[in-house]
Amino acid sequence: MKIGIIGSGALGLYYGAMLQRSGQQVRFLLRRDYHAIQKTGLQVYSCNGDFHLPQISGSLSAQEIGTVDLVIIGLKTISNHHLIDLVSPLLGPETAILTLQNGLGNEELLAEAFGARRVLGGVAFLCSNRGESGTVYHSGEGKITLGEFNDGLSQRSCDLAAMFQAAGVPCTAVSDLRRARWEKLVWNIPFNGLCALLEEDVTNLLNHSQSKELVRNLMFEVITGANAQGLEEPIDGPGFSQKLIFFTESMDHYQPSMLIDRIEGHPLELEAIYAIPLQQAKAAGVNMPRVEMLHTLLSYGESEP
Amino acid sequence: MKIGIIGSGALGLYYGAMLQRSGQQVRFLLRRDYHAIQKTGLQVYSCNGDFHLPQISGSLSAQEIGTVDLVIIGLKTISNHHLIDLVSPLLGPETAILTLQNGLGNEELLAEAFGARRVLGGVAFLCSNRGESGTVYHSGEGKITLGEFNDGLSQRSCDLAAMFQAAGVPCTAVSDLRRARWEKLVWNIPFNGLCALLEEDVTNLLNHSQSKELVRNLMFEVITGANAQGLEEPIDGPGFSQKLIFFTESMDHYQPSMLIDRIEGHPLELEAIYAIPLQQAKAAGVNMPRVEMLHTLLSYGESEP
Repeated sequence: MKIGIIGSGALGLYYGAMLQRSGQQVRFLLRRDYHAIQKTGLQVYSCNGDFHLPQISGSLSAQEIGTVDLVIIGLKTISNHHLIDLVSPLLGPETAILTLQNGLGNEELLAEAFGARRVLGGVAFLCSNRGESGTVYHSGEGKITLGEFNDGLSQRSCDLAAMFQAAGVPCTAVSDLRRARWEKLVWNIPFNGLCALLEEDVTNLLNHSQSKELVRNLMFEVITGANAQGLEEPIDGPGFSQKLIFFTESMDHYQPSMLIDRIEGHPLELEAIYAIPLQQAKAAGVNMPRVEMLHTLLSYGESEP
Repeated sequence: MKIGIIGSGALGLYYGAMLQRSGQQVRFLLRRDYHAIQKTGLQVYSCNGDFHLPQISGSLSAQEIGTVDLVIIGLKTISNHHLIDLVSPLLGPETAILTLQNGLGNEELLAEAFGARRVLGGVAFLCSNRGESGTVYHSGEGKITLGEFNDGLSQRSCDLAAMFQAAGVPCTAVSDLRRARWEKLVWNIPFNGLCALLEEDVTNLLNHSQSKELVRNLMFEVITGANAQGLEEPIDGPGFSQKLIFFTESMDHYQPSMLIDRIEGHPLELEAIYAIPLQQAKAAGVNMPRVEMLHTLLSYGESEP
């Protein structure tokens, strides 16, 4: 399968590399890493074993990539105003689009521009960070849960899941993409936000009983917001939050992407991870006061002169 | 009247200077400012007119001050473990104690050690900061609301209010000290905490619509907590919060004490301003989720290794 990767950050580089290694024809839209990758290829440092891809098909423009069978989107949502222009040149009549971006609102944006039929969404639970140009670090996890934007389990979803599985990426196709999106928010909203705000990694955050309790209370709010969205099956509050905390305790001083963005002075993905979920919860009659407060505190830092 | 000032920070120096200028015999317990004040006296820069007191009776030990008629306490609550030792040497049989410290729990501490009969509390709405040694800046406000720890309006409260008034300090004696304390918390909890957390002054905080809304929501929580305490008369939520915000908008880039403590790396007054109010609200059946979250976020910074 011919695959175009739009947004070759930590996530795009890692999954693209895994797919290429498994035999797929992968085309990367590159920016920062272009010259390094042209010169020496792509180096993946992974907890599952390092590997090196000497030949990468990388382009600086989407036009150069041309049409593909599948577009995988790993772009930061703060660049979503470029998304349509970047994806358009890759689309043939049957091209599918899979967005693995954070938060809510991405499938809607793509569906409006290119038709809902093309669009799938996936939730990636991946601990990865970029290294120096031409390298990417995978420190843990990596599972993708994907599904159709138009609900329901499709053959296409199952085929994509099988493709990722064959590439060594755990992947499940689900019928309720919205539930998967909200489940990811139950992690993203507390950990991305609190880590960025306090400039602290997940391990230190969970080592203090008060901040751990705050993580849990934020999770409960998000789960309440999620369960008001008419999911196929509600998320079990205590069980799911306990599972996520337990699981995060195994991440050794992991720095979520939003913390790295804050440290490096990049804009934060507040719209997709906070603003739209807050709107959708409110529209369903649920207030999330702590989430709203966290959003405000993070926004404040963004809008500073 | 012979008056001892325990805790000669911005508040203790300012009120002590005003009282001395009006003819009271004031004895300051000094630490940082001792040598500068011995040498050149105390300089007050005030929005109501600067003045200089060439002769200050300052001591480095409470024993040296000896007994007084009135002890005024301006000590930071984070030093309350020294409070009893510092106050004891100043007490004669009839000495009254007026604590102007922040937050809750101070009168209780004094009452337990010295008997409730001696204790009065006051709430100071004062914008003042220390300058270099031997100087203090008064940038606005200054009103004191005071009352007996044992509720009810006393002759003594009214006499002390008159003494402050005669010294140019607006002062009112009230029968419900607890209400005055909580009213002050309606300001302190949002502004001290948010300014310290975001390292921002009150003016910038109120210039963003989202953080202004958060201030308002924190105020509503505190007012709900206050009104569950069995006050003589409840605090009017919308009216009182609007008044405080309006009033704070007139403070030109004021930096609350907790912001200065955070910038200078001093411990924050979290126990008196957050922990005890949260406990008292909870005991009355009121949760203050945003206040609790702010407390957690501030505590986190304190406990960092």
